Amino acid sequence: MKTTNEYGATLLETMGTDLSVVNAARVSFDKESDWVSDNDPVEPSHVVLSARDQKLIHYLAKEGHWSPFAHAFLKFRVKAPIFVARQLQKHQVGLSWNEVSRRYVDSEPEFYVPREWRKKAEDKKQGSSDEVVSVDLTYEDMFLDALIGVPLANYNGLLEQGVCPEQARMVLPQSTMTEWIWSGSLYAFSRVCKERLHPSAQRETRWVAEDISQALATHFPVSWQALGPKDSINVS
Amino acid sequence: MKTTNEYGATLLETMGTDLSVVNAARVSFDKESDWVSDNDPVEPSHVVLSARDQKLIHYLAKEGHWSPFAHAFLKFRVKAPIFVARQLQKHQVGLSWNEVSRRYVDSEPEFYVPREWRKKAEDKKQGSSDEVVSVDLTYEDMFLDALIGVPLANYNGLLEQGVCPEQARMVLPQSTMTEWIWSGSLYAFSRVCKERLHPSAQRETRWVAEDISQALATHFPVSWQALGPKDSINVS
Amino acid sequence: MKTTNEYGATLLETMGTDLSVVNAARVSFDKESDWVSDNDPVEPSHVVLSARDQKLIHYLAKEGHWSPFAHAFLKFRVKAPIFVARQLQKHQVGLSWNEVSRRYVDSEPEFYVPREWRKKAEDKKQGSSDEVVSVDLTYEDMFLDALIGVPLANYNGLLEQGVCPEQARMVLPQSTMTEWIWSGSLYAFSRVCKERLHPSAQRETRWVAEDISQALATHFPVSWQALGPKDSINVS
Amino acid sequence: MKTTNEYGATLLETMGTDLSVVNAARVSFDKESDWVSDNDPVEPSHVVLSARDQKLIHYLAKEGHWSPFAHAFLKFRVKAPIFVARQLQKHQVGLSWNEVSRRYVDSEPEFYVPREWRKKAEDKKQGSSDEVVSVDLTYEDMFLDALIGVPLANYNGLLEQGVCPEQARMVLPQSTMTEWIWSGSLYAFSRVCKERLHPSAQRETRWVAEDISQALATHFPVSWQALGPKDSINVS
Repeated sequence: MKTTNEYGATLLETMGTDLSVVNAARVSFDKESDWVSDNDPVEPSHVVLSARDQKLIHYLAKEGHWSPFAHAFLKFRVKAPIFVARQLQKHQVGLSWNEVSRRYVDSEPEFYVPREWRKKAEDKKQGSSDEVVSVDLTYEDMFLDALIGVPLANYNGLLEQGVCPEQARMVLPQSTMTEWIWSGSLYAFSRVCKERLHPSAQRETRWVAEDISQALATHFPVSWQALGPKDSINVS
Repeated sequence: MKTTNEYGATLLETMGTDLSVVNAARVSFDKESDWVSDNDPVEPSHVVLSARDQKLIHYLAKEGHWSPFAHAFLKFRVKAPIFVARQLQKHQVGLSWNEVSRRYVDSEPEFYVPREWRKKAEDKKQGSSDEVVSVDLTYEDMFLDALIGVPLANYNGLLEQGVCPEQARMVLPQSTMTEWIWSGSLYAFSRVCKERLHPSAQRETRWVAEDISQALATHFPVSWQALGPKDSINVS
Repeated sequence: MKTTNEYGATLLETMGTDLSVVNAARVSFDKESDWVSDNDPVEPSHVVLSARDQKLIHYLAKEGHWSPFAHAFLKFRVKAPIFVARQLQKHQVGLSWNEVSRRYVDSEPEFYVPREWRKKAEDKKQGSSDEVVSVDLTYEDMFLDALIGVPLANYNGLLEQGVCPEQARMVLPQSTMTEWIWSGSLYAFSRVCKERLHPSAQRETRWVAEDISQALATHFPVSWQALGPKDSINVS
Repeated sequence: MKTTNEYGATLLETMGTDLSVVNAARVSFDKESDWVSDNDPVEPSHVVLSARDQKLIHYLAKEGHWSPFAHAFLKFRVKAPIFVARQLQKHQVGLSWNEVSRRYVDSEPEFYVPREWRKKAEDKKQGSSDEVVSVDLTYEDMFLDALIGVPLANYNGLLEQGVCPEQARMVLPQSTMTEWIWSGSLYAFSRVCKERLHPSAQRETRWVAEDISQALATHFPVSWQALGPKDSINVS
């Protein structure tokens, strides 16, 4: 029985930098910026975005001028359980999504097993509280058997009897893992992250958003600082 | 145990007609068309699209001039199992989707139980054959128990122990029913239908596409004839 | 010489109400709202959105949950000079645009003549100041002749010599009037208006945004109050 | 008087290759392809797409499975007259556009002067015939003066009198040159090109589409062969 409690997003490719954002905006004035030296004595060739260009990016984000952020792109490979994939799949404006399909694939599925169960929140909109519930199921035996073993046995049973995978998959739980290629603009991914890093987002979904925001912070540090949630550093 | 083998899309609202499509195209020439009488002796006030306007719609569809089809809109309420919802959710360009969430809802779920299981197709890309498999599970007892009873009992058990619904739902199978409001342009829905009425589409998903195409055929008869699959009449 | 200093947007059709927004959001909780009586003694059948539903709309707007606003739609016919159309044409996400084309139309064009010329702003980003410049051109003769008469005579001259309209139009000024059908969701139009009602938007473009926002305010009063600029009442 | 009869699109950046398209599609089957050697005796390390992967790309294009083509991206800087920009601006789904603005820029404008004027077509939908009209204007003097000199003098006159550039620009003809940064997916640009390389497209617009399709052919040779018009080689 293949189980996991780890998943996330892996960056595959990027196009553009913070300077692309700046220059997409500066074209309005028919101007172009360039990197400037930060006078690093150790690495003299090191260049950064000028203070003026950094200010421009913050101005664009603050005023909602999003189009300059839509000329840079990222591509990820994401692995997550289906109930998480379904939440992320809602973000589609400016994003492309191609996913493993259990219509075509009938290999042994893998299942997400949470490290801990969270308590129901008092406020329904909250989704869950931070309190951990010790459920009356032992992870090692009954739990895995009841939650994964039975559906998996049924899935395999259906396949063995010749049932098509596209129907058989309906007996698999929403904790079944899936994978997809996800591409889009810096702007589109910053919207995903902003919404899914929010404290009210489901924690299982936040983990994917954290991986993506990490890539944004590395490759587009100034833009992500300007576009991201103001308290994005300590979200987890 | 709430089960069903029926689901589909219900039309809630529409805006525009085939004439809206015609007039969105005719604006290029600064012209406007109107309905014409079809000289019905029984109902003299009955009006239809002129032959010339019908020809225009077919011309637009054939040449891929899709923008005139994007000024008319439809809104549906759809009910379907999650594995079907996931396929339809891939169509998002120009469509809006708001769905029941089991983060917030913990009422007794309903499950889809197929009337018959289809055999695996020889060609993987086909998804399934037309042949029915008689699976070694009696629908009345073991099947429902193993496929739905066990996951449902586990779901309820987790909820009773105070686990948050947003986590508990992961044990529910992908046959769990969901519902959503789905809105968009005539063009956007015609793309969904064209892809999901295709013989290679999964039959469970085709049922929803058939309901939607029925609404398109009723409210936009000329446009749907022009945009739809050429063999759309006998798709089921 | 056909000139005008008036133009704007005319509402052609709408689908949905503030209640559609509410119910697209409430579907998450599998709930549905309805209109409530406002106990109007004069018109007892008069119904409005409940206080709770009004609060929900403001909450959705504040939190950036835009999808419920994308299940209601509007269609406009807009008339404006080309330099204004070009600014509005930048808003295309979720909007459809079909326009009169001077590739196909060679009727006498109409020109926009401003009632007054505004002074250049000190701050370039501002676009223009509120101060009026009295330009050294008399509107009645030299101005119209130089700015419109000469290009128009050249346009007509080219056409008379057999030049195709698609090329001849390049001599027409950007004050030439055009018309288009513009459709999209309540959300998409609220974004257009929010950006183009901003004090830094060009005044000529603001006029169109004001017409559209008027339609939003009439047909979706609660949503527009929640989505619109906080100072939208006295923008002009 | 700055005039030109040359313009077009310059590729600035790309992300991905034909192999990205293949692997975005193969993820459905949880497979991954790689480049293969073409056994070039001169350059042994030279790699290409396998015959099987080439076939897959053609299959995807033929069946309208466009999402795998939306994980690769291109960025261009385009220079064109306004009447051409307006046609291209209609393509916005999945594309980002940031342009020089004459609200902010008041430098000497440049104008497009056609090398030849084409005759009006018999069929209005055609736009223009291939026949050249020798217009009764000498390019060197009267033409430039009437078509460009007068509007330019008026533009400069308005600016000198303090009129804001955002209003003054309305007297400039639609032959005024503009520039923009244009980014989007391989799929989005292939749609632009397919429509604008069509024989019925305006020739001035086709020039930009030709530059873009050249970049597509260079960087995504298999995909562009599959997505492009079947007669794309001799379009001009």
